[in-house]
Amino acid sequence: MALQGNLLVGQSGGPTAVINASLAGVVEESKKHPEIAALYGAIHGVEGLLEEEMVDLRAEDDEAISLLSDTPSAALGSCRRKLTDADYERLLGILKAHTIRYFFYIGGNDSADTSHRIGRLADAAGWEMRVVSIPKTVDNDLAYTDHSPGYGSVARFNAMAARDAGLDTLALHNVDKVKILETMGRNTGWITAATALAREQPHDPPHLIYLPERPFDADRFLSAVDDRVAEGNGCVVAACEGLRDADGNVLASFKHTLGTDSFGHQQLGGVGDYLVNLIADRLGIKARFDKAGTIQRVFGLAQSGVDVAEAKMVGAAAVARACEGVTDKMVTLERVSRSPYRCETGLAPLENVANAERPVPDEFINENGDHVTPAFLDYARPLIGAPLPPYARLKMRRVAKLLSD
Amino acid sequence: MALQGNLLVGQSGGPTAVINASLAGVVEESKKHPEIAALYGAIHGVEGLLEEEMVDLRAEDDEAISLLSDTPSAALGSCRRKLTDADYERLLGILKAHTIRYFFYIGGNDSADTSHRIGRLADAAGWEMRVVSIPKTVDNDLAYTDHSPGYGSVARFNAMAARDAGLDTLALHNVDKVKILETMGRNTGWITAATALAREQPHDPPHLIYLPERPFDADRFLSAVDDRVAEGNGCVVAACEGLRDADGNVLASFKHTLGTDSFGHQQLGGVGDYLVNLIADRLGIKARFDKAGTIQRVFGLAQSGVDVAEAKMVGAAAVARACEGVTDKMVTLERVSRSPYRCETGLAPLENVANAERPVPDEFINENGDHVTPAFLDYARPLIGAPLPPYARLKMRRVAKLLSD
Repeated sequence: MALQGNLLVGQSGGPTAVINASLAGVVEESKKHPEIAALYGAIHGVEGLLEEEMVDLRAEDDEAISLLSDTPSAALGSCRRKLTDADYERLLGILKAHTIRYFFYIGGNDSADTSHRIGRLADAAGWEMRVVSIPKTVDNDLAYTDHSPGYGSVARFNAMAARDAGLDTLALHNVDKVKILETMGRNTGWITAATALAREQPHDPPHLIYLPERPFDADRFLSAVDDRVAEGNGCVVAACEGLRDADGNVLASFKHTLGTDSFGHQQLGGVGDYLVNLIADRLGIKARFDKAGTIQRVFGLAQSGVDVAEAKMVGAAAVARACEGVTDKMVTLERVSRSPYRCETGLAPLENVANAERPVPDEFINENGDHVTPAFLDYARPLIGAPLPPYARLKMRRVAKLLSD
Repeated sequence: MALQGNLLVGQSGGPTAVINASLAGVVEESKKHPEIAALYGAIHGVEGLLEEEMVDLRAEDDEAISLLSDTPSAALGSCRRKLTDADYERLLGILKAHTIRYFFYIGGNDSADTSHRIGRLADAAGWEMRVVSIPKTVDNDLAYTDHSPGYGSVARFNAMAARDAGLDTLALHNVDKVKILETMGRNTGWITAATALAREQPHDPPHLIYLPERPFDADRFLSAVDDRVAEGNGCVVAACEGLRDADGNVLASFKHTLGTDSFGHQQLGGVGDYLVNLIADRLGIKARFDKAGTIQRVFGLAQSGVDVAEAKMVGAAAVARACEGVTDKMVTLERVSRSPYRCETGLAPLENVANAERPVPDEFINENGDHVTPAFLDYARPLIGAPLPPYARLKMRRVAKLLSD
């Protein structure tokens, strides 16, 4: 017999361009299941929930729920709260008081950990509750899934940004010979690697791509930049904010006073400025950096259609599976066909997801450690949705010189 | 009788999302004028021209010329070259050798100055040549024109970025209470002001906007940020890279070794990091900054349809006016109707344009100097083209608390 009760959904961690599509998927699927009575949304994830802050999602118009899929950031509010044992006890009390039998948390591996613990505590207390987490992270570092919703859109933004800012450098390479595109990515280079999707021809930007999966070697970097600048037309470098040297030190020229969140993650950012100064000091070459920062992860205009659809799909699948009895799992994406690209949903144990981080694998990084391989492009290209819009490429047929040689 | 001869067009200064639309306008209009024989494009503006580097634009397919309007950056290449007297002499020799009778330079006030000098030198040498410059600058600081092509698109990008990054801060304001959006703008705050177009409701981000037209007062800034943070939901600040304190010093925490171009302009950038540190040190509040850098000026996806159409229109008008005998002028945009918005082209003397810089006027800046006025919004809104796409706004009806207060 179906488990009767209320549903609670929350959003956690860094916002993305499609986390609200997952929320829409949860809400729309829930309405198909009569055993689910109330639909509640936690305000600012577990942080608001600890204060019993929830909204009634059945009070929202269908139109607003549908428009969520086009709306970036986290409509319910998000958090990065690491819970204490006392917090977990309090949460369980609140969940029981509101007869929550279905608990869905949209987030990354910290959120999977939170979900797993809440579920375990409910079990121990004899409170029947289905707990399913819904993958979300621009970092694409969740294991047990082909990729994570949120990644396709940040990848699309960065592909477009690299193509356009790359053209900017080509146009003005006599002034700014080197451009650094600083991308997000705490420990993994998935986002940075996506800038390679900007390339249509072999000499197109970005020319060099540095991922934190390889220790950063300043001398080799400077040599590569110098070579590229010597060829003319400028050098465009994509660099991950999480780059570290061989000793594990982050390459940041500025360190903020208040630099860690409650999970102990240091706030990164600064590699762009660091590299600009390194290039100026060691090569005497003028460089500049762009750091799209949080804009890259939530830029609605750069949503990938594939990403939106999949984000919604994993939200809906979480509800459908939970109604079938699944608990203590995260919904995953499984690539069932490469060409044409198609993903279906699967399931992975929350505990496994919580404790794993997936770096960019060796076969996606070139031998020099300064670019990606064709295998990466094959993997990532379908995730950004429609092809990038075409740009003019002029033939640039030279006029014969009459005065100079 | 019509002046027979060849045409040369060049692109100068920082690339924009629509400078190629002006190039398309020049090429397409030129083909309507039989007195114009060859259509040449200068590679990297006057810098390539000094080396006699030109391309034959008649060799390009109509399709490629048409696609230029969708293609950001400067397809012919650009430069920031300040010419010496000897350079000007050499240029004139090259123009004469190639029978250039029509000279069009797409750029800002430095480019207008270059155009004016070339024209004056040709006059003095008895070489009949029509010189018309075509306005282009994301900075929107050209005088004698309602606005400059390039501005509408950078404004659209920044409105979108502020809306999306603003939603990101609202979602995660317990982690990052303050976000600084560092925008371009050497001496004027037009680009920064455009972030205000993100607002749909009075409490929407950006909450504070700082333009270089007002000296930056750190104490008042910190007080405003502190007040806003105390209200909850976070504080989003748009800050111009050109901000200066009362003594005229740029607010930059990092200074690059090679920091000036050949016009003596210092490379800016660093205000975001500066303000993040100021807020951390003085208020003990964690902030972060986004600095879209060159991405903002060339992001093709954020092109304003109005901007594209006007960029093409001023390119075409330059050719049409030159064929009528106009010389030593820049094409301008004149707003002939406010509602519905409509601009027509006009003309201004190059010498006047070259020597003027238009700051954001007082009536566009609020009394506190920390936001814009409704008059600015009325001025700028039509320039960004279509309204920003709608986002979901949830009612957020609270669930009654059962356990807490």
